[in-house]
This record gives sequence, C-alpha cells and structure tokens, in this order.
Amino acid sequence: MIYLDYSATTNVNKEVLASFSKSAEEYFANPNSMHKLGVNSKKLIEASTKKISELLKVKETEIIYTSGATESNNTAIKSIAYTFKNRGNRIITTDFEHSSIYEPLEFLKKKGFIIDIVKTDENGIVSIDHLRELITDETILVTIASVNSEIGIRQPVEEIAKVVIEHPKCFFHVDATQSIGKDKIDLSDIDLVSMSAHKFYGLKGIGILIKKENIRIEPLIHGGKSTTIYRAGTPALPLIVSTAKALRIALESLDSNYAKVLELSNYLKENLKTIPGITINSNEMCIPHIVNISLNTVKPETMQHALEEYDIYISTRTACSTNDYSRSVMALTNDKEKASTSIRISLSHLTTKEEIDIFIIRLKECFNKLNSLS
Amino acid sequence: MIYLDYSATTNVNKEVLASFSKSAEEYFANPNSMHKLGVNSKKLIEASTKKISELLKVKETEIIYTSGATESNNTAIKSIAYTFKNRGNRIITTDFEHSSIYEPLEFLKKKGFIIDIVKTDENGIVSIDHLRELITDETILVTIASVNSEIGIRQPVEEIAKVVIEHPKCFFHVDATQSIGKDKIDLSDIDLVSMSAHKFYGLKGIGILIKKENIRIEPLIHGGKSTTIYRAGTPALPLIVSTAKALRIALESLDSNYAKVLELSNYLKENLKTIPGITINSNEMCIPHIVNISLNTVKPETMQHALEEYDIYISTRTACSTNDYSRSVMALTNDKEKASTSIRISLSHLTTKEEIDIFIIRLKECFNKLNSLS
Repeated sequence: MIYLDYSATTNVNKEVLASFSKSAEEYFANPNSMHKLGVNSKKLIEASTKKISELLKVKETEIIYTSGATESNNTAIKSIAYTFKNRGNRIITTDFEHSSIYEPLEFLKKKGFIIDIVKTDENGIVSIDHLRELITDETILVTIASVNSEIGIRQPVEEIAKVVIEHPKCFFHVDATQSIGKDKIDLSDIDLVSMSAHKFYGLKGIGILIKKENIRIEPLIHGGKSTTIYRAGTPALPLIVSTAKALRIALESLDSNYAKVLELSNYLKENLKTIPGITINSNEMCIPHIVNISLNTVKPETMQHALEEYDIYISTRTACSTNDYSRSVMALTNDKEKASTSIRISLSHLTTKEEIDIFIIRLKECFNKLNSLS
Repeated sequence: MIYLDYSATTNVNKEVLASFSKSAEEYFANPNSMHKLGVNSKKLIEASTKKISELLKVKETEIIYTSGATESNNTAIKSIAYTFKNRGNRIITTDFEHSSIYEPLEFLKKKGFIIDIVKTDENGIVSIDHLRELITDETILVTIASVNSEIGIRQPVEEIAKVVIEHPKCFFHVDATQSIGKDKIDLSDIDLVSMSAHKFYGLKGIGILIKKENIRIEPLIHGGKSTTIYRAGTPALPLIVSTAKALRIALESLDSNYAKVLELSNYLKENLKTIPGITINSNEMCIPHIVNISLNTVKPETMQHALEEYDIYISTRTACSTNDYSRSVMALTNDKEKASTSIRISLSHLTTKEEIDIFIIRLKECFNKLNSLS
C-alpha cells in the first residue's frame, strides 16, 4: 500500500495507541469524581495538559479539549461571535478555509454577521495591506488557517497577528490543523488556535482549542465544570493522555521529519513536472507535505480509482469538502478546469522515495491511458 | 478496591477496548475520504450504525454520533430551541435534571426562553396531569431524563411521550444516559434521546443522539458532511466501532445483569436500614443501580475520604455537579440537611455481595466514628 493522504488523516502511532489503552484501563475513574480514583484521573489529565502547554508554549489554563478541530473551529468562531456581538458583527476570513470554518461562517451570515474576504496574491498569500484596510471597529474576529488543507499554502500568521493586535476589540483565530506537528508555528500572538490529534499520528475524536486566558467566551457546550469552564462533559482521559504523547513525539522530531518531507516533496515535484498536461498548484509558499496538482483533462475521481487498483491512495479535494470543485484551487487559479480536476498528494516522514517512484510511474501510466480513452 | 461509583463512569470492557485498538490500527483512513481505504472505513462505521440501530430499535438515519451525553443534550436542546423558536419559546423540564440539561436551559433563559418546571410527586415522579396543563402552544420542547443520575428515579417516559405526542409542534427529548445498557426503555415515541458509551462499559469521548428522521434541526457543530448532516467532523471510527460492541454486550445481558443488580440493591438497602441516623432517599420508583442516602449528621466529603482509606469509592452528588448541595435530593425531600449530606452508591452487575458486606461494615464504622467526633 502506498498511502499519500496523510493530510486527511494519519495512521496512529503504536506508542500513542498503547498509551490510550493503558490509561483507559488503569485510570477509568471519572476525572470529575471527587474521590481518590477521580482525583488520580484528574491529576493524570493535568500532567498531560502541562506537557501539552510546554510543547506548544502556551499556558495550561489556555488549553480546552474538544472532540476535534471541527468542534474547536466552531467553538472559536461561534463563541466569539455570540459573546462579542455587541461590539460588532464583522468577521474577516479568506477564500482558502476548510468547511469547518466556512460552514460556521455561512451559518453566522444567516444570523446577521457580515463576512469580509481578505484579498490574496497570486500565491494565495493574504494581503497584509488589504487586511489593514478591511478591519473596522465592527470587526470582532479574523479567522485564517495557518496552512490551507488542499494546496498547503502557508499564511504569514505572525504578520497577520501584528495587524490584528493593533485592534484590541478584534480577536485572531487560526485553524492550525495542518501545521501542528508538521511545521513550525509561533502561537504567542494568536488569540485562539484549533488543532486535531489525528493529523499528527494521534487518535480521532479529540482536538484542542487554545484560547488566551483573558478572553471570556460563552461555551458552545454547557454543563458541569470539566477541565475548563469553556467545555462541559466528562473529560475523555485516554484521548487526552494519548494526545499529549502524540504531540511530544511529533514535536521532538519536527525538524528532521520536516527536512525529510521537504526532500521527498521536491523530488515528487521534479518528477511531476516531467508529465505533460499536469499542472502543479502548490507553490513555493506551501508546506512540503501537500502537493496539489490539476489533471486538466482527466477527472480526479477517475484517477483516484485508477490509482486504487495499484493500492495507491491520494485525495480528491479534502475529505470534508462537499462541492464538486475545489474552492481553494478556484481561489488560487481562478480556473474552473483546474479547480474541478485537482488532486492532493500528501506526504509524511513515513513516506519513502521508493513509494514516490512507484507513484510517479503509475500516475503517468494512468494519466496517459485515461487521456487516450477520452 | 471496592468501586461503587458505576453511575459516574464504568470501567471499560476488555473486548470493547480490544475492538477500539484493532479498528484504530486497521481502519485508520478518514471515513470521509473517497478512496477505497476511506470507503472501507465508512462501511465499517455503517455496519456499526446498523448494529446500534437494531439494538436500540431505531432507524440508522436517526443515529448521530457526538462526543458524549453532554454534547447530545446540548445539541438536542439548543438545536430544537434555535430551529423552532418561531413556533414558541417555552421548554418544560423537571427539577431532577443533570447539569448538562440544566446549564443549556439556563443559557437559553438568558436568550429569552421560558423554562417551565413540571411538578413531581413525593417519589419524584412527573405529574402527568400537571404536564398536560403546562404544555401550551408556545411549548416547543419537553426534556426529561429517563432516570435521574443522583437518586435513580425512573420517569414514566412512555406516558410522558403520549402526552407530548398530542402536541405535534412540541418535541420530547430524553436524557437516557442512566438507562441505556442498564434498564429497559422504549424509545419509539421519543423524538430525541441522549446517551454516553462510558456509562455502559464503553469508552469516554463518544455519545449518541437519536433524532427522529423527520425532525430537521440546525446542527450545533457545522462543517462538511460527516455520518449525518447534523454533526460535522471526521467520524471517530474506533470510538464508534467500540460503542457498537459495548452496546451489544450490555443489551445482550441486560435482563440477567438487571436481576443481579436488583438483588444486590435490595440487600444493600436492607443493611442500610439497620444504621440509625442514615436516611435512604432512593425509593421503589428508582432503578436498583443507584442507592442515594443522606448521612444527616456527617458531611458527605468527610465520609467519602474516610471510605477511601479502605479503598472504597462512592460519590458525593454527581461527578458533574457544581453546587454545595444536591439539587435532586432537595427537589425530592425539600430538606436542606438531607440535600447537603447525600451520597450516592451506584452498583453494577460486576459488584459482589462480599463487596456490599465490606462496604456496610466500613460505612457503619466510619459513620459512628465521625458522629462521635462531631
């Protein structure tokens, strides 16, 4: 099997899974229980929270556990909107956001919020000048992903943060789901950050929302006090403990893993350039883990199924998209053909050069065959 | 260790945990991915959904996966409130609800909703007559737990459903977290039902919301299409698969487990009656799994810690409560002393008669000692 869809989800690290199983068995008591077993569960969660806070260089009190990046994004956006709607009703975003950002914003539009789209340049990078112009006294939130999930465009979040910080009544949220564990990112000037464990070899069903301590928001999910007052429910101890482990493993090897993926990615792109008729959409501003291409003359689903026959797995758009073309590729290229024929190849440090070689051979083969049929 | 806090959470069944680990390793692909690996993940989830639907006698399309009962309760209550607020702004509930019901309702109060409390009799049972009087054309939701988590009071949900069904513009939500897997419950006339896997020997971090097919609600968490349009996010496959297994195991042995717990519970109550100064709050209308008592002269926290010294674990109020007295015991007894000195002993089919014997000896010992000190 050649799995080239690591940006949709990763396989779980064996150590991470072992830590899940061990903590599920040994620390089964409810962390909200006040007896010793409950307190022991609570302490284990607190140790995990401390570890995560050190790894991400944030405060322990800034960590909110959620069920995944989708809940983190929904909480960040809706809670800011609901809590601060008296300040204003404008939210700034880009044309490159994931459906778990796009759909909550569409929902808020129906509630009377105004969504402003910041301009991006030919590489898909947010225009800092336009952002400055766009922020008004009515703007309560800027939400921009650090890395786009389909093309891999890396936004200058530190620069964006510097602009937002000049507007004390406006918050900055970053969906960092495609960054955390893969790419360096400085969270210090960002108000709210979303992430998901299953994108860095952790388990599905858990995410984190980092929220600056001084921001008081109305929770999305109300109930008794949990690890924080911002998200009720029995804390999912084994998921939390295993996430701390997954994050530690990912960040410890981040530099070497990044270097490896960069080499693989360059090698892949060089080879892709030799295939006439294929366009590479990912550019120099993208993380190396994601290589988006357009097949132009071949339908992406057809290619996906053709490659499947060779046990090779790539993605057509993101796993969570619902459109029949890629909103992100459309925003970047303004070309409907490219946007409706794009595929995403996503790499890991677990990917090998041999896998890339086989992938290229099969891609060429399938591409020529499918072209000759059409 | 003598664990008597099974209503706070259960230990995970070994088979359930094994199914989690196996599916996490073997089916790691994103169920939203459109390649074969993703489709295989999706099919496995669909098989789990089918199994759950058969076990609960509901339709597959009525199953929404959430992160737990707290999210299920929040989704049911807020989504109905937001979606149908044009119909009316009244919601009916009882004084016996869990914080994950109480707090969302308190939140809705601030948004202009009116919360009506239905009267209960001396056993804590909802007055059907008062319910009939209370439902108006403005009532859009009745939310009542099938079993109260602190005292174990079992409400006549089938009778309540018959009243609500006469009002086609009003929905009936049941928090069945303390029923599912323990007690028989007919879900057929209930519009929305919440449950949580970790209450029936499953894992923490997953719950279910059953929602009748014809009810279209606005999701609490927006994003791309997932297993349903009502809850976005990458489906947490290993949690879903393991929940189907946990539910099957729980329901297969429900009758024999119930009989065993009933016997243990009666034995426990008989012994408790022999301790002067202790009042049993749980009555004949309660499920046998929960035995709530008031210590009257001794603080519950003090008793909890005294029993801990003997490796015995009981609960003071529910794990998720935030008050310094029990709202439920207060509602039942209208006695502040009883409400502020209550403890909950919760049993399982895994509990033994020998554990009850030791518990009673230690409880007597601690009670006498603590009384003599005060």
